Amino acid sequence: MVKVKLVGAGGYGGIGMVEILHRHPQAELAALVDVQDVGKKLSAVWPYLRGFCDLPLIEAGSKAEQQIDADVVIYATPDGVAQRGAAAEVAKGRKVIDYSGDFRFGSIEVYKEYALRQGLNPEHQAPELLNQSVYGLSEFHREAISQAQVVGNPGCFAISCIMGLAPAVKAGCVEKSGIICDCKTGVSGAGKKPAAPFHYPEQYDNSFAYKLAGHQHVMEIEKELSTLAGEEIQVSFTPQVVPMTRGILSTLYGKLPKDMTQKKALSAYQEFYAGDKFVRVLDATEKSGTGQVRGSNYVNIQVACDERTGVFRAISHIDNLVKGQAGSAAQNLNIMFGLEEGLGLDNPGGHP
Amino acid sequence: MVKVKLVGAGGYGGIGMVEILHRHPQAELAALVDVQDVGKKLSAVWPYLRGFCDLPLIEAGSKAEQQIDADVVIYATPDGVAQRGAAAEVAKGRKVIDYSGDFRFGSIEVYKEYALRQGLNPEHQAPELLNQSVYGLSEFHREAISQAQVVGNPGCFAISCIMGLAPAVKAGCVEKSGIICDCKTGVSGAGKKPAAPFHYPEQYDNSFAYKLAGHQHVMEIEKELSTLAGEEIQVSFTPQVVPMTRGILSTLYGKLPKDMTQKKALSAYQEFYAGDKFVRVLDATEKSGTGQVRGSNYVNIQVACDERTGVFRAISHIDNLVKGQAGSAAQNLNIMFGLEEGLGLDNPGGHP
Amino acid sequence: MVKVKLVGAGGYGGIGMVEILHRHPQAELAALVDVQDVGKKLSAVWPYLRGFCDLPLIEAGSKAEQQIDADVVIYATPDGVAQRGAAAEVAKGRKVIDYSGDFRFGSIEVYKEYALRQGLNPEHQAPELLNQSVYGLSEFHREAISQAQVVGNPGCFAISCIMGLAPAVKAGCVEKSGIICDCKTGVSGAGKKPAAPFHYPEQYDNSFAYKLAGHQHVMEIEKELSTLAGEEIQVSFTPQVVPMTRGILSTLYGKLPKDMTQKKALSAYQEFYAGDKFVRVLDATEKSGTGQVRGSNYVNIQVACDERTGVFRAISHIDNLVKGQAGSAAQNLNIMFGLEEGLGLDNPGGHP
Amino acid sequence: MVKVKLVGAGGYGGIGMVEILHRHPQAELAALVDVQDVGKKLSAVWPYLRGFCDLPLIEAGSKAEQQIDADVVIYATPDGVAQRGAAAEVAKGRKVIDYSGDFRFGSIEVYKEYALRQGLNPEHQAPELLNQSVYGLSEFHREAISQAQVVGNPGCFAISCIMGLAPAVKAGCVEKSGIICDCKTGVSGAGKKPAAPFHYPEQYDNSFAYKLAGHQHVMEIEKELSTLAGEEIQVSFTPQVVPMTRGILSTLYGKLPKDMTQKKALSAYQEFYAGDKFVRVLDATEKSGTGQVRGSNYVNIQVACDERTGVFRAISHIDNLVKGQAGSAAQNLNIMFGLEEGLGLDNPGGHP
Repeated sequence: MVKVKLVGAGGYGGIGMVEILHRHPQAELAALVDVQDVGKKLSAVWPYLRGFCDLPLIEAGSKAEQQIDADVVIYATPDGVAQRGAAAEVAKGRKVIDYSGDFRFGSIEVYKEYALRQGLNPEHQAPELLNQSVYGLSEFHREAISQAQVVGNPGCFAISCIMGLAPAVKAGCVEKSGIICDCKTGVSGAGKKPAAPFHYPEQYDNSFAYKLAGHQHVMEIEKELSTLAGEEIQVSFTPQVVPMTRGILSTLYGKLPKDMTQKKALSAYQEFYAGDKFVRVLDATEKSGTGQVRGSNYVNIQVACDERTGVFRAISHIDNLVKGQAGSAAQNLNIMFGLEEGLGLDNPGGHP
Repeated sequence: MVKVKLVGAGGYGGIGMVEILHRHPQAELAALVDVQDVGKKLSAVWPYLRGFCDLPLIEAGSKAEQQIDADVVIYATPDGVAQRGAAAEVAKGRKVIDYSGDFRFGSIEVYKEYALRQGLNPEHQAPELLNQSVYGLSEFHREAISQAQVVGNPGCFAISCIMGLAPAVKAGCVEKSGIICDCKTGVSGAGKKPAAPFHYPEQYDNSFAYKLAGHQHVMEIEKELSTLAGEEIQVSFTPQVVPMTRGILSTLYGKLPKDMTQKKALSAYQEFYAGDKFVRVLDATEKSGTGQVRGSNYVNIQVACDERTGVFRAISHIDNLVKGQAGSAAQNLNIMFGLEEGLGLDNPGGHP
Repeated sequence: MVKVKLVGAGGYGGIGMVEILHRHPQAELAALVDVQDVGKKLSAVWPYLRGFCDLPLIEAGSKAEQQIDADVVIYATPDGVAQRGAAAEVAKGRKVIDYSGDFRFGSIEVYKEYALRQGLNPEHQAPELLNQSVYGLSEFHREAISQAQVVGNPGCFAISCIMGLAPAVKAGCVEKSGIICDCKTGVSGAGKKPAAPFHYPEQYDNSFAYKLAGHQHVMEIEKELSTLAGEEIQVSFTPQVVPMTRGILSTLYGKLPKDMTQKKALSAYQEFYAGDKFVRVLDATEKSGTGQVRGSNYVNIQVACDERTGVFRAISHIDNLVKGQAGSAAQNLNIMFGLEEGLGLDNPGGHP
Repeated sequence: MVKVKLVGAGGYGGIGMVEILHRHPQAELAALVDVQDVGKKLSAVWPYLRGFCDLPLIEAGSKAEQQIDADVVIYATPDGVAQRGAAAEVAKGRKVIDYSGDFRFGSIEVYKEYALRQGLNPEHQAPELLNQSVYGLSEFHREAISQAQVVGNPGCFAISCIMGLAPAVKAGCVEKSGIICDCKTGVSGAGKKPAAPFHYPEQYDNSFAYKLAGHQHVMEIEKELSTLAGEEIQVSFTPQVVPMTRGILSTLYGKLPKDMTQKKALSAYQEFYAGDKFVRVLDATEKSGTGQVRGSNYVNIQVACDERTGVFRAISHIDNLVKGQAGSAAQNLNIMFGLEEGLGLDNPGGHP
């Protein structure tokens, strides 16, 4: 049994991991850590978990936290937390998986730019770990993840866009310049903290774009796609919120190269993802929607080029809280510990 | 492994059972039967199941259906279907669990009244089975269910009301006359078939009462409560639809007997359900809501007597598609086959 | 033109009044006052109003506020605000309409109890005005409202329950003891301030009861019904939140007197409300729902006694932000200034 | 008073017009015509209209329909209805406004292509009227509309895209090739008829793209933009449904010409729409969302070029049932009869 210490257990990202570990046959929760609701049982904060997970929330930084025994530490925390704690965990021989941007970039310079874009402290607190960390997009970096001590889990938008575009970029189904990511997310992507735009009466019949001046996730997308393409790729990214709770629908556009067709593009996607359990490639006419991946770790990618106008188009669907967050983290955990990649993730979600 | 033949597999009740059996360690799907979408894979009708259940839908009444091997047949079908098929299944030595009203009443006379209230044919097609059938409220009839060949799964409203009222009726926390069931259901209770009131634009910001002249579920409630009380009990029942997908919130009222208090009533509930894994008894001030049982097989019952006005009050929360339907059926299956009652049901649901 | 000074203009209650006055042919906004977003245009806070109401929010208590010229001051503010400001307004000869509990009770003693129940300061700041103030349930107190200097607008739950029960209490369609109010409200009733339970992902598929230990609105309901009945009436009140934005659905129960029937009760309601433009009385089989009054000032009351069990039942539907708040206030304004009662309220709402 | 005969009165497009005419000071309903619910009052079909519009639905084609006196006939009907009825109405000297595609194209050849794309009969039934008909995008064709006998109201997606792109195409803020329209609509765009994808439990937490092989609305968009640009323009169009009832959010992309900037593009938009009451031009950082135009006739257009990647971007927001349908039709009616363009449309909608 892999013993998991879960930091930031009380947020949506934390309880998402609790749900997965509850189903996981070879990993289990060692302890829960948080800065809020300290001392309470997790099931007192989230009563739906009563009888499923009644562990207490241990205070971050407390003596009790020091005494937790674990094989891996999962940081379901915002930017800045994991980079302050990871070195001590690694020193104890533990593996680390972080949900935030702290370990996504593998380079101090790139991290600095990422941090500055968001008004964060640009000095990384664990630069030596950052250099060895691996970007946790399971389907693309299995080998490196399996060897990694520290994995930076990708952002939810980034997973959706990178996985939706990668085969096209790799196989030349799309021209390298002029790529557009039109992304719609459910509200849970904003976390559990109440805020005016997400107050039920404001959100219930309202769709809107935000951060039009630039969104931090675009850096991850460009970095991964550039690596795949072997040349620098820029994408224009438009995040939007629609009145749903779970799901990201990313419609991805670019210029269709002269000889490229829908048929060829579809084949390229099928081939690219042939060995990937959690990817479903769909043709343009198949029934799709974020509802088809709700609660599951699947990415559904629909290839639907518009040959009439010469536009490449792929549509990527994920559950932002599963494949977009806790599911990917669990998949990485499995890979890091040499377990079957889908353990704990054999869940179609509940419909409707 | 218990082999399950699932009839009516393509409806909400069917896919709910598919989800549970997918998690079940000792029962498995033998085959799926339906009258719609015959020949298609279930995962073609419900693409979220691709990779989880790709069995085809076999035509009801076809030769292929005859050849299905099974230990138990679950009818996730409307009134009238199971009573026509059950005898043949029982003759083959199979157990039968039916979601509909066909086998809920154990008596031809009561069934006749039930059928007439709904404009159905009052002649039961398998009267000899009806006489031996058991009402499948797991918590109340474990012994009989464990011996039964045919179990009639209760209606979702009935489960919510009976479980919310039973301890009060049994322990005298409420007077026997004047009981009121104010029930609010999510829309999935109406099934998958589109209808004008449930069209998204009509339903999204609208709550309404319906069938004010009388609802068939009241018969089950009265029958069970009368048995528990040892005298005839009538309840006034008001079904209402609110704009949610899953969940029943039943607020149950009656007259508080002179010496009865909130404290005593709460104790009576705790005692009554002490051995029942899937029941959580809550005090008046605890956080509650249908969201706390969404996706799980739990019944949350909040005891909240209004001592000032002398009104007994209990509030019952279930997921209408789990404890209200497929979850109860699976619980009964476990009991019928001598398995641990919670197998396949160890699922907190996914939040949010 | 009646000139209106609107205090608390930036909340849901404020903008609801702005919408009505925009349509009102004989009343107009003089100025907007608030403590938040001071100096901004209302349409900067609520951009949907750009081009409809671009007045600035004047700081409460500022010199600029002193200089506002007005015939009536509407306090769309929480408890405690109007009672501190009303005396000065009345001294200037202005009429006052208050949304809060400050002027609902007409008696210092009753106010004290109301305040204590909510943990407010029990000392009323304008006791002499309280004594002359009128309870603003337009349909019941037209004469007094037309003479009043200060009107206390009823609570939304109270309007829904009182109007739903009054004819029964008056005409003896229900027994005086054992009345139950089962009330479901949309989320906008909680105002615009974000809070954890109303965060979109928490609220979207969740219904729950709250304040089970006692809700302040019950005092208003009991006071009005007792007056109508000529004897003291107590009601048991259960507030519940369902995932909609607008609307209150109140299902009202009591004991049906021996000779009372659905037919007689329906007649009593029709007669009682014969002269009231904004009340629709419905029979048990008519199509109903909060969606039928969404955006309008109507109260739809469905009479649906359960003769089988001897239970009186009426179901009351309002839009909590219109008839439940700003619409009632506008109706009172019209009455206070001798205008036609429906001015500004001739709006069916927009469907769907 | 302009007397309006409304055909197809019982659909969402019909009741939207009823709501507007109820507020209109110089136009009024003469009669309602439909093929469903004939003989019923409109308020029996849509009870929220009781007391607002209690006219009966007259049977289409009946003698009673022949006898209706009217100045204008509004067809709130699907493709194929208006072209069969319009000639007779015009012969009586009446003006005609049609919601469908019947009179949008002004040319038999283009209509034929439109009809074939949708599997409709390509033979137009009133070719002589088609030749004189005017495309009813009020802001662009005021002069022609004011002279027109027959106006073809634009499709809702088309309004959203054309108005969002026109200034850019006209002023050269975007390159003429490679334009992309990513459009998200609320469910009411599909009309009142229940269908599986829009059943509440299927739609409530689900976003999806559809008609990926080509959508008929693209023809209108290309035709208008080509005329504005003076050269042929093609656009790639992706319709998507998100779980809201009202609203279209269209994110419009293209290549930013070398010297073009956000600042210049914004100015171009402000200038283009300087005289248009119902257009609000927003900068990239202003608060936006479909909720800001819900219930109103406004188009909010946010200009938000991505200079880093050289992508032109504008985001268009409308209420699909107002500016997208009945509101535009009313605006055209006003223009056709020489009335002030905003009559009946002075409504901010009700928030929240």
